[in-house]
Amino acid sequence: MPLREYLPFWNKLTDNQRQTLLNAAASRTVHKGELLHSGSSDCVGLLVVKEGQLREYVLSDEGKELTLYRLLPPDICLLSASCLMPSIQFDVFVEAEKDSEIFLIPSEVWRSLMHQSLEVSNYTLELMGERFSDVMWLMDQVLYRRMDARLSAFLLEESVLSGSDEMELTHETIARHLGTAREVITRMLKYLHNLGAVALQRGGVRILDREKLIKLAEGSLR
Amino acid sequence: MPLREYLPFWNKLTDNQRQTLLNAAASRTVHKGELLHSGSSDCVGLLVVKEGQLREYVLSDEGKELTLYRLLPPDICLLSASCLMPSIQFDVFVEAEKDSEIFLIPSEVWRSLMHQSLEVSNYTLELMGERFSDVMWLMDQVLYRRMDARLSAFLLEESVLSGSDEMELTHETIARHLGTAREVITRMLKYLHNLGAVALQRGGVRILDREKLIKLAEGSLR
Repeated sequence: MPLREYLPFWNKLTDNQRQTLLNAAASRTVHKGELLHSGSSDCVGLLVVKEGQLREYVLSDEGKELTLYRLLPPDICLLSASCLMPSIQFDVFVEAEKDSEIFLIPSEVWRSLMHQSLEVSNYTLELMGERFSDVMWLMDQVLYRRMDARLSAFLLEESVLSGSDEMELTHETIARHLGTAREVITRMLKYLHNLGAVALQRGGVRILDREKLIKLAEGSLR
Repeated sequence: MPLREYLPFWNKLTDNQRQTLLNAAASRTVHKGELLHSGSSDCVGLLVVKEGQLREYVLSDEGKELTLYRLLPPDICLLSASCLMPSIQFDVFVEAEKDSEIFLIPSEVWRSLMHQSLEVSNYTLELMGERFSDVMWLMDQVLYRRMDARLSAFLLEESVLSGSDEMELTHETIARHLGTAREVITRMLKYLHNLGAVALQRGGVRILDREKLIKLAEGSLR
């Protein structure tokens, strides 16, 4: 899909503004595991996901990760251009979780449009509202949902994203997604295994009983 | 202070826009404990804090509260006008924590300005970025900070806000602020008491050793 299909305000731009965007937006192929944005030290710009999957996460002082959310086509990553909004005072990291195709729109170009076009400014507000909502949902999960439910929901989500019941996932990787310690995940996976919900294999997890896992995720089975 | 002092974009507005704002903004006195905004069921507008103190919080499905942040003069509460931003998909509650004086700017008036003035639109983005940052800070606390450190930090903050070492605070109230159970707070307060950091009295807490409490909040004393 061409760039304009991802930008709902395209028809409201002037010819000049469209041309500026088309000239500035770079099509890039990024590889699984590649770090696209690293905290406040850089401000690469907005990332438009054409194909693949990006992951946005934060790091604690002790180096612990927590996945905030995933970006799938046609999502747009805004926080990789956080320098556009000086009031954003936290650091996010963005990595490609699969080989991906993206458009990169440089921060400076977006900043200029935000100060020329009401549509771009209000759309940026919409984007930030979406991400804010994602984080509020996560806060609710972290605070009030038991780890067995969060782990079950995570495994179900992973199997949808990977299109398979069999997932390559180390305990360490899962712990980084959920912002907890590896030991906690190891204990929880054994618990899910004892319930017959999953099978544990070398470097991976296989879903055995999806229904049971859904109930666990909902908190209606313990 | 008059309304214009709270709005950094005032000089960029047209005379007409200023007059609209002045006509629409209502000065209100609200009393301690008054609920000013209640989830997505209403959308009262932006609240400009002239005097006093507001508290913004969320409620879990089980009715547990978590304080997101406090608003002090000259803060502006944006999420009480969340209907302006359809992508905001979470419910916040706003209550007066002290007798307060506010300006209420109706959502419809702000919406109209946001679609007329780039300055208003970009300022709204700034406001949302600030609140987003507050919530990300809180997420870090909730995930990675021990409850004794969070409780100590909360007591220090309360004593600054109330201007006293002696605070009327039930264990239940503290638990609601920190999003945990009353029993957890009771246990933690006993621990702080045994360390000589606080004295526990009927319906309240008194700070005995501020230095110790600061160290506990920093995690450098356990």
